[in-house]
Amino acid sequence: MNRRDFLGAAAAAGAVAGAAAAQSAFPRPALAQGVREIKMVTSWPKGFPGLGTSADRLAQRITRLSGGRLSVKVFSAGELVPAFEVFDAVSNGTAEMYHSSDYYFQGKSKAFNFFSTVPFGLTATEMNAWVHHGGGQALWDELSAGFNMKAFPTSNTGVQMGGWFNKEINTLEDYKGLKMRMPGLGGEILRRLGATVVNLPGGEIFPALQSGAIDATEWVGPWNDLAFGFYKVAKYYYYPGFHEPGAIISAAVNLKFWNSLSDEDKAIIAAATGAENDYGLAEFNTRNADALQTLVNDHHVEVRKMSDDIIQAIGQLSGDVVREIAAGDATTTRVYESFLAFRKKMVSWSRIADQAYANARALPFTY
Amino acid sequence: MNRRDFLGAAAAAGAVAGAAAAQSAFPRPALAQGVREIKMVTSWPKGFPGLGTSADRLAQRITRLSGGRLSVKVFSAGELVPAFEVFDAVSNGTAEMYHSSDYYFQGKSKAFNFFSTVPFGLTATEMNAWVHHGGGQALWDELSAGFNMKAFPTSNTGVQMGGWFNKEINTLEDYKGLKMRMPGLGGEILRRLGATVVNLPGGEIFPALQSGAIDATEWVGPWNDLAFGFYKVAKYYYYPGFHEPGAIISAAVNLKFWNSLSDEDKAIIAAATGAENDYGLAEFNTRNADALQTLVNDHHVEVRKMSDDIIQAIGQLSGDVVREIAAGDATTTRVYESFLAFRKKMVSWSRIADQAYANARALPFTY
Repeated sequence: MNRRDFLGAAAAAGAVAGAAAAQSAFPRPALAQGVREIKMVTSWPKGFPGLGTSADRLAQRITRLSGGRLSVKVFSAGELVPAFEVFDAVSNGTAEMYHSSDYYFQGKSKAFNFFSTVPFGLTATEMNAWVHHGGGQALWDELSAGFNMKAFPTSNTGVQMGGWFNKEINTLEDYKGLKMRMPGLGGEILRRLGATVVNLPGGEIFPALQSGAIDATEWVGPWNDLAFGFYKVAKYYYYPGFHEPGAIISAAVNLKFWNSLSDEDKAIIAAATGAENDYGLAEFNTRNADALQTLVNDHHVEVRKMSDDIIQAIGQLSGDVVREIAAGDATTTRVYESFLAFRKKMVSWSRIADQAYANARALPFTY
Repeated sequence: MNRRDFLGAAAAAGAVAGAAAAQSAFPRPALAQGVREIKMVTSWPKGFPGLGTSADRLAQRITRLSGGRLSVKVFSAGELVPAFEVFDAVSNGTAEMYHSSDYYFQGKSKAFNFFSTVPFGLTATEMNAWVHHGGGQALWDELSAGFNMKAFPTSNTGVQMGGWFNKEINTLEDYKGLKMRMPGLGGEILRRLGATVVNLPGGEIFPALQSGAIDATEWVGPWNDLAFGFYKVAKYYYYPGFHEPGAIISAAVNLKFWNSLSDEDKAIIAAATGAENDYGLAEFNTRNADALQTLVNDHHVEVRKMSDDIIQAIGQLSGDVVREIAAGDATTTRVYESFLAFRKKMVSWSRIADQAYANARALPFTY
């Protein structure tokens, strides 16, 4: 996904602008005594599966937990501000909270990449470990405070897929001249392999793949990919996705507003984001598992593994690209160093824990 | 871990009984108007890392979220009721809530195993997926309602280790006559491999391993295992742990009490358990990663992988044992069928997502 995707997706859905115009004409009810309104601006189309729905759940939970004392109203992309202006809107107090993913704001500081996901970085559970217990939250607080905000992890896409291809990828040579849609740092890595990397918003990917204007695209995972119908116009579905191994979806609050809250209301926002962080990842994993069955059994999609040679070369380039962005400024370097040290020890543990267990479970036995 | 472990651990720590006796002598302060007291009984010694500390955090969070309207007081194992009588205590209303793990209560129904962990079952994130989005919570509600309770997942140990061994395990023959401490379903599987399975409470494991009374033991993972000092008396630390791939720590509320709560207070308990489910797993993963470094670098522990032949045989027996317990009664069969169907589709997704990603990341490249 990239910054322009959701605008594209929203435009394709053709619903957002009209709804926003209609809504602003309604008079607002007067707020009850002591009620504080929280405008939650998001980077997603209304009800976008897994992302928009997570924002809705978070808003409802904060409202319910506070008995309505904190009244949260969700604005989908473009309703109050455009999808990727949510950062500035919350920073300057136009809105009190955003629901987005912080790599969209790497223009403000490259360090924000590490609080979403980076190529060959940490998985969802590993990111939670770093943020909650490995020093990540303190660094994120420091980074966000510089923009007058405080951020929390509030969902995660989990491991994403490698993408949809109309050409076989058997050797590194096959990347040369490949026209692939892949935004961000992942795209930069493919560019170094000789691919022609293009950026298309969500709504334009399907026709581009269908017409042959592009040979391949990544999107998210089976759940969101199935909804876009890519299986109709692409031959191969490659795994694993190296570029977004567990993208944090974040909720950030205007810092002045945050500091004005009571301890109880702060605890409510923190608990609501934590509960949704648990619930949202579980939803992505469940719906991806369901959608994979549909893609394979009903649509006969050919799921293919990238060769180890290719993955190893991409891994090397991922290390290079992440190291380069970390050299940008002092804050980013400090965040990178914390992330890198944590990644090193976490990979050692995951190797004998989750990874070894998953490989053991995949051995041939009847269960 | 097993039912007797924490009693043993508590006795070894030698702290619980005295504290409980002292506490009961204090007069209780009168509760403020509208304040409802929740006695949270637990199966853990006071402050037990990862489990007792999770109970403390959950209690504090519920109290804080409700502005003190719900006043939660934690009772460690033995303070109000013994560790494994928390189920009956909450069922009959002696206490309002327990913090435990439901496989301890398989004597009530074998189905409770599936709401903790079973050999070669689901990982922590997969369990969350099943419970939150795969029908698990509805089945758990039905099962627990039969005992006048409602339960939530509120933490998870993550993947556990295979255990500490003083004999090499190279072939299945090496299990014959091996004296190993492993409780529950895992122990039953080793018994079928010809091992002499013993059950020892936590405090008795170290001397038994030291004297040669046992050849091997499992406990939890590096964090808790390091604290018990097993590295001083055992040669090899084997992985992966097949028997507890992600044990849910649960919080269960007396159903009559639950039904008497306002929607807001119900939402507070649900959100608090969800947030702690996110935070607690992250803590286990972080501390396990830290402790593994200490075990390997400072204590020169030899970490070894079980051979695929052995794992495959254990996998086959795991399938048998889990199938056998599922045949016990109609409710357990229905839970098993839901679990098994979910496991099948989730393993298919994990194979190309988390598992494939972890294996890709383990290829040799500089990062």
